[in-house]
Amino acid sequence: MKMIIAVIGDHDNEPVSQALIKGGFRVTRIASTGAFLRRGSSTLMIGVEDDKVDDAIQLLRDHTTATDEANMKRATLFVLNVEHFSQV
Amino acid sequence: MKMIIAVIGDHDNEPVSQALIKGGFRVTRIASTGAFLRRGSSTLMIGVEDDKVDDAIQLLRDHTTATDEANMKRATLFVLNVEHFSQV
Amino acid sequence: MKMIIAVIGDHDNEPVSQALIKGGFRVTRIASTGAFLRRGSSTLMIGVEDDKVDDAIQLLRDHTTATDEANMKRATLFVLNVEHFSQV
Repeated sequence: MKMIIAVIGDHDNEPVSQALIKGGFRVTRIASTGAFLRRGSSTLMIGVEDDKVDDAIQLLRDHTTATDEANMKRATLFVLNVEHFSQV
Repeated sequence: MKMIIAVIGDHDNEPVSQALIKGGFRVTRIASTGAFLRRGSSTLMIGVEDDKVDDAIQLLRDHTTATDEANMKRATLFVLNVEHFSQV
Repeated sequence: MKMIIAVIGDHDNEPVSQALIKGGFRVTRIASTGAFLRRGSSTLMIGVEDDKVDDAIQLLRDHTTATDEANMKRATLFVLNVEHFSQV
């Protein structure tokens, strides 16, 4: 199991989250702020089976939109290893 | 050291957090939202010594409450390895 | 690549974040709450190259301020390994 932490623009939060749910992924959303310009962003935590990481990242690519601003990436992705996962 | 990331219902935030503190755990709480139905949730980050992970998870089990909704788990738990921990 | 998760006092959020940006670090800020006394805190997620972890921690040390309260640390730091990092 992996956890993908994705920082995306607020405007992409809803379409990206819905695409991930439709794809069968578990998503938790957290409001965040970029340090630079304090722009609003959304941080998604996505629990993903190892062999589904690429699928989730592809969905993130497909459903984030380009911004007008130079040097602004559409999504910043961190993939972390999950030692233990459970639902109680 | 491990970090437990626990996503729980808002209504369980206070009793779970207090039980964890009473158990000697460090807890940081973050407001979050499930992607499905946008239901409010709370994300707890809990710093835990390796040999206390099971104790913390037991406290989470004991202090979360069942919901009426089918297929809703009371808590989703991710345990991550912490390479380095410090307090400055 | 590592992710530093730093829990700091709200009053230190702005100077710490600005110092990290000036140092070339990527920072995402999340509002959080300590479990004890429900005090407001800020959780910073900082993506860091392996050889820059000590530099980032030093900046955190240098820009957090002591509190009057006994037993209150200025910052709690978790360093996690990042298996995969990308910007899309």
